[in-house]
Amino acid sequence: MPNTFGKLFTVTTWGESHGPAVGAVVDGCPPRLPLEVADIQAELDRRRPGQSDIVTPRHEEDRVEILSGLFEGRTTGAPISMLVRNADQRPGAYDEMREKFRPSHADYTYQAKYGIRDHRGGGRSSARETVGRVAAGAIARKILQLGGAALHGAPIEIRAYLTQVHDIVMPADAGADFPALSAVEATPVRCPHPETAARMIERIKAVRSEGDSVGGVIECRVRGVPPGLGEPVFDRLEADLAKAMLSLPATKGFEIGSGFSGSRLRGSEHNDRFESREGKIRTATNRSGGTQGGISNGEEIVFRVAFKPTATILRPQATVDVHGAETELIGRGRHDPCVVPRAVPIVEAMAALVLVDHWLRQSAQCSTFSF
Amino acid sequence: MPNTFGKLFTVTTWGESHGPAVGAVVDGCPPRLPLEVADIQAELDRRRPGQSDIVTPRHEEDRVEILSGLFEGRTTGAPISMLVRNADQRPGAYDEMREKFRPSHADYTYQAKYGIRDHRGGGRSSARETVGRVAAGAIARKILQLGGAALHGAPIEIRAYLTQVHDIVMPADAGADFPALSAVEATPVRCPHPETAARMIERIKAVRSEGDSVGGVIECRVRGVPPGLGEPVFDRLEADLAKAMLSLPATKGFEIGSGFSGSRLRGSEHNDRFESREGKIRTATNRSGGTQGGISNGEEIVFRVAFKPTATILRPQATVDVHGAETELIGRGRHDPCVVPRAVPIVEAMAALVLVDHWLRQSAQCSTFSF
Amino acid sequence: MPNTFGKLFTVTTWGESHGPAVGAVVDGCPPRLPLEVADIQAELDRRRPGQSDIVTPRHEEDRVEILSGLFEGRTTGAPISMLVRNADQRPGAYDEMREKFRPSHADYTYQAKYGIRDHRGGGRSSARETVGRVAAGAIARKILQLGGAALHGAPIEIRAYLTQVHDIVMPADAGADFPALSAVEATPVRCPHPETAARMIERIKAVRSEGDSVGGVIECRVRGVPPGLGEPVFDRLEADLAKAMLSLPATKGFEIGSGFSGSRLRGSEHNDRFESREGKIRTATNRSGGTQGGISNGEEIVFRVAFKPTATILRPQATVDVHGAETELIGRGRHDPCVVPRAVPIVEAMAALVLVDHWLRQSAQCSTFSF
Amino acid sequence: MPNTFGKLFTVTTWGESHGPAVGAVVDGCPPRLPLEVADIQAELDRRRPGQSDIVTPRHEEDRVEILSGLFEGRTTGAPISMLVRNADQRPGAYDEMREKFRPSHADYTYQAKYGIRDHRGGGRSSARETVGRVAAGAIARKILQLGGAALHGAPIEIRAYLTQVHDIVMPADAGADFPALSAVEATPVRCPHPETAARMIERIKAVRSEGDSVGGVIECRVRGVPPGLGEPVFDRLEADLAKAMLSLPATKGFEIGSGFSGSRLRGSEHNDRFESREGKIRTATNRSGGTQGGISNGEEIVFRVAFKPTATILRPQATVDVHGAETELIGRGRHDPCVVPRAVPIVEAMAALVLVDHWLRQSAQCSTFSF
Repeated sequence: MPNTFGKLFTVTTWGESHGPAVGAVVDGCPPRLPLEVADIQAELDRRRPGQSDIVTPRHEEDRVEILSGLFEGRTTGAPISMLVRNADQRPGAYDEMREKFRPSHADYTYQAKYGIRDHRGGGRSSARETVGRVAAGAIARKILQLGGAALHGAPIEIRAYLTQVHDIVMPADAGADFPALSAVEATPVRCPHPETAARMIERIKAVRSEGDSVGGVIECRVRGVPPGLGEPVFDRLEADLAKAMLSLPATKGFEIGSGFSGSRLRGSEHNDRFESREGKIRTATNRSGGTQGGISNGEEIVFRVAFKPTATILRPQATVDVHGAETELIGRGRHDPCVVPRAVPIVEAMAALVLVDHWLRQSAQCSTFSF
Repeated sequence: MPNTFGKLFTVTTWGESHGPAVGAVVDGCPPRLPLEVADIQAELDRRRPGQSDIVTPRHEEDRVEILSGLFEGRTTGAPISMLVRNADQRPGAYDEMREKFRPSHADYTYQAKYGIRDHRGGGRSSARETVGRVAAGAIARKILQLGGAALHGAPIEIRAYLTQVHDIVMPADAGADFPALSAVEATPVRCPHPETAARMIERIKAVRSEGDSVGGVIECRVRGVPPGLGEPVFDRLEADLAKAMLSLPATKGFEIGSGFSGSRLRGSEHNDRFESREGKIRTATNRSGGTQGGISNGEEIVFRVAFKPTATILRPQATVDVHGAETELIGRGRHDPCVVPRAVPIVEAMAALVLVDHWLRQSAQCSTFSF
Repeated sequence: MPNTFGKLFTVTTWGESHGPAVGAVVDGCPPRLPLEVADIQAELDRRRPGQSDIVTPRHEEDRVEILSGLFEGRTTGAPISMLVRNADQRPGAYDEMREKFRPSHADYTYQAKYGIRDHRGGGRSSARETVGRVAAGAIARKILQLGGAALHGAPIEIRAYLTQVHDIVMPADAGADFPALSAVEATPVRCPHPETAARMIERIKAVRSEGDSVGGVIECRVRGVPPGLGEPVFDRLEADLAKAMLSLPATKGFEIGSGFSGSRLRGSEHNDRFESREGKIRTATNRSGGTQGGISNGEEIVFRVAFKPTATILRPQATVDVHGAETELIGRGRHDPCVVPRAVPIVEAMAALVLVDHWLRQSAQCSTFSF
Repeated sequence: MPNTFGKLFTVTTWGESHGPAVGAVVDGCPPRLPLEVADIQAELDRRRPGQSDIVTPRHEEDRVEILSGLFEGRTTGAPISMLVRNADQRPGAYDEMREKFRPSHADYTYQAKYGIRDHRGGGRSSARETVGRVAAGAIARKILQLGGAALHGAPIEIRAYLTQVHDIVMPADAGADFPALSAVEATPVRCPHPETAARMIERIKAVRSEGDSVGGVIECRVRGVPPGLGEPVFDRLEADLAKAMLSLPATKGFEIGSGFSGSRLRGSEHNDRFESREGKIRTATNRSGGTQGGISNGEEIVFRVAFKPTATILRPQATVDVHGAETELIGRGRHDPCVVPRAVPIVEAMAALVLVDHWLRQSAQCSTFSF
């Protein structure tokens, strides 16, 4: 089931960039959760293209329809089917892609794997598929919000934001506090540090004018997570987060806590010593990034995801056609010079899916019986 | 099934550091594969502790016994159960760990999650669990070797090695060629670049003498992989590799191809243009790291894994006990100042598990029928 | 994932009786399969209510829309999403069911399990959910048809039909040959034996006139199945068929081959001796029903499914309300005196799903590599 | 993972009839469950061959060893690995089976599927594999016992027994009450009705003296099950029970509640009307067999399993050899004229596995959050 994610709270996405629609089915949602279309639409709106002048001008309303699993404003425990019609289809705009493999896109590998491929806008490999993830993630976020409040006195909150675009990096000390959503959403690049955001925007505009593209890094933090989530040995929390993030288009790396830079420290520098704080066992530092041995320890979960520069550029590129003959591809049409800002709600959605799934699993295994 | 990895070729590991034994059950192994105990023992020997003076002195023979699934030297398609008895048990050596949580170990999180914990040597959270992974990986490697030769004319080969210990980094140009196994195994640090290896060894000895520890980075390359492995959208090849690696103890990061540094390039610099080479569609560069859209493209798969410094250090550390009272932990006894060299066969084993699983999946979905 | 069936060829169904729509997502369909809407519509039409005067008069067009996974008349390997809008909704017709639990329906158990329930027409527990199964089964049947022809020279064919309604039983010798589809579809009861069919129709009309209902038995046969399908030990072919059938509404029993009556034979009577026929290893008899040790042996697969009488009857019944108070339920409105004839295409669909799934699994495990 | 059963409480069995050992790994067992070897040994002793003069004389001690997952008398949440060495191996006793396919055994289908087969005593297809199921089931039963008592005030109890051997059937009214374990275990045929048991024993001895064999039927009842277990739509409780039972060697049928005979009743006769009893919603009758819509309703779960006569008989039988040539098989050696009595603890074990799995699933989905 390569199009399904999760073990107890599962999402199955379907749909192609230029097919009739995209959507998702969520199975395993706890019953009685208050849910309305607006909860989902709000997250889809954050992901929607055409929101600013630094992202793709593709125009999509992305109105979601909930087709099942809801009764009088609450979930019933039955699967929740959600559908978004594709609107902005341009017949003929993709004719060149039928014959030529775009560099660093999935055209060639889909053809090699399946022996057939919907070339229009990347078909299934398009980031449009993430509409379904964001819709499902919105349900997961509602669970984390209400469930966290009910069970632990505070909602579980997820906040992602850009810390890097190209070689522009947010100062390390700028991210000390958990950023407010308003700070993230204040600019179209979704970097909560205004000066850095301004520079990022400038850079993106510059590369766009050159028909080029840039990548970047998203940091994601989760607070309010109770200790105990994550299932050794293979389904460690960070392992499932890593899989979730590397399943997103254009991602090239994942790190948690100290990450790659932690490999340059000594144990005496890296270890998070325990202390007793407000009657709870806490760590004085958080180089672990919120998990130890694959299980959440109650600290903030902190991870980062690396995105490569958008593969589509408005420049001629050497390539081969479907017959293996060398040719040239003339990029043109819509162009998204930096997809990273729009990936923020997607990263948050995937994090939410992982957390809810592990919350349910933890409940099943460890909380059902009290021997 | 948190202790099972894979969908078609699955491994279930079991066992604790100081229980009677550790082991694994492999299900889904193709029938008729020639297999003998020596195939598995060879890999276990590479992983075994006590092999040099820079790793843990724990003494284990690690003799594997195959209990099922084999008949007259070949696999039968039935599950393969493998068992390794634990030998070096030291009653009393871990008494301190019963009461105190070791910093940056899993003691606290296991206790928080399960309400009980086998404190002896870390119990289930010990890296001793990876014995089962390496045993299963040895079977997977045999499939890649023989199956690759039979189906594609050349074995699929996996080679991991250290590129970094603490702040000592192998020169980038030293890894241009696929390193020979002999070059990797030439030194106990498993870095194929002799000068770097010598410096790594020196550093590890230095930190050991200070009772401290260091981390590092392993790079892993796979050659001979046919195009088409990997299952969009969630089971992308790199997503499953990321999960596999982050499921290993002490890992903090994963990146494929250009990884985090790729996020600093422009699209025009990063894209791997296609070309026709020896009648095959190839890419001129490999910043993608061997996959596009989550599917292998026939190029070398290249990824890196970050390991934090060993949490166990021979120094007093502040911590809390199981009652939440602040106390001090006096590290003593066996100590592995750098686990990264011994992680090399483990990384290879996990990569082999991912690849065989996806090979079987690709075969099932795309090769069974020719419409 | 309780709403997903299958391991490699999976179907996820969603939707309630009186929600906006019902549907299914198929994942794992081999690419390049020729498929059109008419393939699916044909099976949905066989399942559709309101086709004769002995079944429910609920009026539904049941027009299916394919939303993804198809490109220029062939499958692409991407998930196939199918949607059928619900039309015949009667606001208010189900008000009584909001407060009262209908005997032998799922009203009470859904309420007990989920703490909430969509009472309209049974909600998720309605047999309307099987629309998605039949749609997915139509794709599976196409694979069996074309794949069987391509790989084995003949299509794999599935034929189900009624052998019993109430106490009217088709003569045992009437089913010696594999019945033609036309013989099954010749009457609205789908019994290929005309005399028995006539008596069944008469009986159904009689009980309908009394406001009562009857059950029955469906036999299903599959021919053309290659030896080797089925995965010991838990995923035996008959085990997965049994699960598939008992997952259907109103089913109470499953038997394969000799079934319950086989338990009254001696080994010397029951054993199917092997013989060599037309160069193939065959059995002289087929009390095994086409599998041995959970694996198909190349003979016809033959199984039977028992259906209880429809729970909805047009008679007053004692029951309790949601508060536990005893009350009376006055059945009225639409009424299906015998659901078994309409279950025929559903049984076939489920059998097709099981067979394709095992075909893909067999291919993956046993055919990928030739050592 | 064809050798794994369950979704949250999983058992993976391994081992062949004449390999070194058989065993099982249980994953997902809740932590802190009091468990000792004796709990498991007791169930294995019930299953053990050689206990009376009416079953196989194979001599096995079947001593179980627990290798992991237990710490100071309680489970830890880590996988529990259990091992039983095979003792009674007879080199040479199975030489004839290497060349000839035994009728109605799995010899031919294993060969056809895998292209290789361990012929000794049936290899993986031997009922010896069920040792692992019984061991795992013993853990599940302990959970049902202690968990039921803790959560619902009474243990969940499973009781299976023979209602039929060959054509000897226990009187219907003899099973009105839930039979005492002592009544079941009072005779080697495990029929709680003494007169019927005596006739069964007589019949088994008679067919044994003729070198023949007989089948039978096991009924299984479960009391104390809370309402709410079972997951529509595919993972209905009866669907998973059906799969569990049809995954056992020699089974040909499954029915729940009224079963096949229920298909001969009218709705007005079959419906279980609700009533209020001792403050609970109960049904006046139990033709449903304890589930409605796939979910337990709090009544006794009652199902029956049909077993064919043992395929091994001590008579010459026509068959073919591995080359397809017709030949004769001379049965000899050990012989079990009726396996059904020994299947009783196996049926109970499988029922326990299904129930615990669904209990955990119900807890995860429906009890974790209270919105």
